Amino acid sequence: MTTETDTRAGTHLYALVQHFYARQMQALDEGRFEEYAATFTEDGTFQHTPGTEPARTRAGIVAELHAFHERFRDDPVQRRHYFNQIVLDPQDDGSYRSTVYALIVRIRQGERPEIWPSCVVHDVLVVDGDEVLMRSRTVSYDQLPAQ
Amino acid sequence: MTTETDTRAGTHLYALVQHFYARQMQALDEGRFEEYAATFTEDGTFQHTPGTEPARTRAGIVAELHAFHERFRDDPVQRRHYFNQIVLDPQDDGSYRSTVYALIVRIRQGERPEIWPSCVVHDVLVVDGDEVLMRSRTVSYDQLPAQ
Amino acid sequence: MTTETDTRAGTHLYALVQHFYARQMQALDEGRFEEYAATFTEDGTFQHTPGTEPARTRAGIVAELHAFHERFRDDPVQRRHYFNQIVLDPQDDGSYRSTVYALIVRIRQGERPEIWPSCVVHDVLVVDGDEVLMRSRTVSYDQLPAQ
Repeated sequence: MTTETDTRAGTHLYALVQHFYARQMQALDEGRFEEYAATFTEDGTFQHTPGTEPARTRAGIVAELHAFHERFRDDPVQRRHYFNQIVLDPQDDGSYRSTVYALIVRIRQGERPEIWPSCVVHDVLVVDGDEVLMRSRTVSYDQLPAQ
Repeated sequence: MTTETDTRAGTHLYALVQHFYARQMQALDEGRFEEYAATFTEDGTFQHTPGTEPARTRAGIVAELHAFHERFRDDPVQRRHYFNQIVLDPQDDGSYRSTVYALIVRIRQGERPEIWPSCVVHDVLVVDGDEVLMRSRTVSYDQLPAQ
Repeated sequence: MTTETDTRAGTHLYALVQHFYARQMQALDEGRFEEYAATFTEDGTFQHTPGTEPARTRAGIVAELHAFHERFRDDPVQRRHYFNQIVLDPQDDGSYRSTVYALIVRIRQGERPEIWPSCVVHDVLVVDGDEVLMRSRTVSYDQLPAQ
């Protein structure tokens, strides 16, 4: 039976996760990679490209992000990650599966902003009181990523 | 007079409706039409194209969605419905009018994702405890839909 | 120390601000400029273009919006402002800094909807009970605005 307390807790968590994602993705888009990595658990994993090995641990995630952005050194680009339609499903171990649409807007100087790419983000969130952390993030693409 | 209890109930409902929409539209975009139809009341109506007769009842909505998607059999396309700027207005009969921006991203293999189309969704929601159902959905377009 | 009451208040405020923005931006996009201006404090300021003087007071904001839209008299365009990734930071004076992604979809008849432009909105919000008002709004662009 779902009690009123449960559902209040549910909507509280929903807004908490929205705010968590907002801070997290503003940090990523502004290049604050340590802050982004700190939103993962110490042993968290992050796979941003299907078919590759995920980055592991906060230090590993920071290193991966620096390597990724190094590729765009001669082609400066601003990205904005728009998250939408967050679905939270509680799991047996107390964590939450979070399934989220992500529209990435890519902006290059002198070009029109464009959507590149359209993704679905699959997270596992652990919630301790009001602290949210990510145990894992896996990104799937609606089409294969390419330049 | 608006009491604190009222406004807490208001923000609780707001997050509840966001989560409801997230599940609903992920179901639609993944082709789970029965699950989408089940978000309507038994006698719910769904008009996705202005000037056409709305689909009526859950069974009618499922049939309509299958017919719509049949048209794209030879032209596979992935859609992602982004909902934003949800405005909820209570109505005299206890239901809520919900006015929502919808940006649909359309993805075809080998093409760039594009916005097609930009819509405003007009829903009537009935809320019983923490169950949300749609009595009706009418979609208006910022320009006429075309291929 | 953050108490449970604090964090419940935090997620309550988060949903309150989302709903506030939804009403505000639907008003702007539908050309209800007085309603948009009324979301500012009496002495509020609004700078929509970097490097220009901000509009001041509600009357000044209405006048500025009429002047801006006059420019599009011969080129009718529908805009939809999508807000996302809202980050709220409390300030010492009791107000909140709000940093928000804004994707503007521009729709012209006979053309595809396009993203123009991609922005970050920097607001200062004052909250009195459940009334939210804006003391200031400053918009930054990911690239320079142009036609």
